[in-house]
Amino acid sequence: MSLIYILDLCAVSVCAITATLEARRSELDMFGVLVIAVIAGIGGGTVRDLLLGRLPVYWVHDATYVAVGLVASTLTFFLIRHLRVPKNFFLIPDALGMALFTVIGTRVALNLDVPWLIAALMGMITAVFGGVIRDILCNEVPLIFRTDIYATASLVGALMLIGLDDVGVEHNLALMLAMFGTVAIRLAAIRWHIHLPRLREMN
Amino acid sequence: MSLIYILDLCAVSVCAITATLEARRSELDMFGVLVIAVIAGIGGGTVRDLLLGRLPVYWVHDATYVAVGLVASTLTFFLIRHLRVPKNFFLIPDALGMALFTVIGTRVALNLDVPWLIAALMGMITAVFGGVIRDILCNEVPLIFRTDIYATASLVGALMLIGLDDVGVEHNLALMLAMFGTVAIRLAAIRWHIHLPRLREMN
Amino acid sequence: MSLIYILDLCAVSVCAITATLEARRSELDMFGVLVIAVIAGIGGGTVRDLLLGRLPVYWVHDATYVAVGLVASTLTFFLIRHLRVPKNFFLIPDALGMALFTVIGTRVALNLDVPWLIAALMGMITAVFGGVIRDILCNEVPLIFRTDIYATASLVGALMLIGLDDVGVEHNLALMLAMFGTVAIRLAAIRWHIHLPRLREMN
Repeated sequence: MSLIYILDLCAVSVCAITATLEARRSELDMFGVLVIAVIAGIGGGTVRDLLLGRLPVYWVHDATYVAVGLVASTLTFFLIRHLRVPKNFFLIPDALGMALFTVIGTRVALNLDVPWLIAALMGMITAVFGGVIRDILCNEVPLIFRTDIYATASLVGALMLIGLDDVGVEHNLALMLAMFGTVAIRLAAIRWHIHLPRLREMN
Repeated sequence: MSLIYILDLCAVSVCAITATLEARRSELDMFGVLVIAVIAGIGGGTVRDLLLGRLPVYWVHDATYVAVGLVASTLTFFLIRHLRVPKNFFLIPDALGMALFTVIGTRVALNLDVPWLIAALMGMITAVFGGVIRDILCNEVPLIFRTDIYATASLVGALMLIGLDDVGVEHNLALMLAMFGTVAIRLAAIRWHIHLPRLREMN
Repeated sequence: MSLIYILDLCAVSVCAITATLEARRSELDMFGVLVIAVIAGIGGGTVRDLLLGRLPVYWVHDATYVAVGLVASTLTFFLIRHLRVPKNFFLIPDALGMALFTVIGTRVALNLDVPWLIAALMGMITAVFGGVIRDILCNEVPLIFRTDIYATASLVGALMLIGLDDVGVEHNLALMLAMFGTVAIRLAAIRWHIHLPRLREMN
C-alpha cells in the first residue's frame, strides 16, 4: 500500500463525512445519506474514468474505496448526535482532499497523453464532480458553481502540476507544490471571502 | 428468446408505465414523458454497463428494449384518459420488476469477477438508478433516498443471491430465492410502513 | 480541417453562447457559467460517445472543442454588458447547430452498425443532451421536455437521414436534406407555436 493510496482513501472519507454532515438538514433517510456520501467520495474519479475510457472505473476491482466511504458515513451518521462538530472543523481536511484529488486526476490524465487543457480539466473534474453529483441528487444548484473559489483553486493546482512537470521538476516535488498551491488558494479564498464576479453583479 | 429476456422486457415496460403514470401531474409534454419513461426503464442497466465498462451499453445493439419502453409508454399515455387505474395496481409488478433487475444486475457483475460488495451495488444500481435519473430529470429529490425500504430491499436481494451462489445453491434456484426475498421485503415495507431512520428524526 | 469539423466547432460555440446568455439570470459565478456553457456545447456528443463505447470521448484528444467553448463563453460573458442582443438573435444559429449535431450524431452511430431506431436516438441525444445536462445543473426541468417541438425536430431529422441513406441518396446530399428538414420543422414550430399534447391538457 503506497502512501498515495492511503491518502486517497482518506480523501474519500473526508468527502463522505462532509456529505453526511450536509445531508443532516435534508429529508433523506439513512440509506439515501449513505449512497450520497459514497457518491460524493468516488463520483469525481468515476466521471474522470468514464470520460477517459479507463473502464471499469477505478473502484470496481478494489472495493476498499466504497467500503471506506460507507464506514466513514455510517460512523458520522451515528456519532453526529453525540458529538458537536465545530462548523469549520472540516475546512482544512476538505481543502487537502480536494488538492489530493486534483493532482491524482491530473497525473492519471497526463499518463494517457492528453492535451494539457484536458489534463487540467480531468484534475478539476476528479476534485469537484463528486460534490456536483451530490448536489444534483439533493436537488440543489451545485455549490461550486455559486460559491467562492473552489473549483478554480483546483484548476490552478492542476495547471501548476502540468507546468512544473513540463519544466522538469521532480515528480513527487511537483505533486507536493501543486497540492500546496491548491490548498493555499482555497484557504485564502475562504479567509478573505474572495469570489469570482457574477453576471448579475456586473450589470 | 430465453425466459429471462422476456421477463427483462416486461420489467422495462412496468418501469415505463409507472413513470408515465407519475409524469401525469407534471408539465411535461408527450415527448418528455416518452423520453423519461424509456430512461426509467433502461437507465439502471445503462449506468451499470458504463461503470463496468460493458460497452456499448446493452440496448445499443438490441433495439427491442427501447421499442418496448416506447410502446408501453405511448399506450399508457393514451389509455390513461379512458381507464381508471387503481392507485396500488402497479405495486406488485413494480416490486417484481425491481427484484428481477436486481438479480440480473448482480449476476452480470459476478460474471466479471468483481468483489461481492461491488456486485451487490451493481444489482442495486440496475434496479433503482432508472428511477433516480427519472426523478433528477423531473427536478425532484430521488424518491428512493426519501421513502420506505426500496433500494434496501434490492440490496438485501443482491446480497442473498451472492450468498446463495457462494454456498453452492443451484444458479436458477438462487435466482428465484433472491427475487422472492426482495419482493417480500419490499411488500412488507409497504404493508407495515417500515422505513429507515432519518437524521432529522434522530435529533 | 474539413468543413464539417469547422461547422461542428461553430455549433459548439453557439451552444456555449446561448447557455451563457441564459445563465444571466441565475446566481452562478463566472466559473459556473463557463463550465455550464462548455458542458452545453459538448455534453450531447459526450453522452453519445459514452453509450456507444467510443472512448475516450471525442474531445479528450482534441482540446479545440473545449477551448472554443471557453472562448465563446468568456467573450459573451464580458460583451453581454455592452451589447444589446435581440431576444431572437440566436434562434436560427441554434436551429442550425441542433440540425448539425443531429446529422453528425446519427452518422457516427450508423457507422457502428447499430439498429436504425438507436441511430436516430443517438442523433437526437447528440443534439439535445448538452441542453439537458445544462438544465439539470441549473436545477430546472429540462426545457426540451416542456417546450414546443425541439427534440422532436431533431428526431425527425435523424429519421430523414436514415431513410435517405437507405434509399441510396448520395451521402452529402442526404446530410443537407436532413439538416434542412430539421431546421424547417424547428422554425415552423417556433413561428406557429406548434407543440405536442400534454397529459394535463388532455384530461
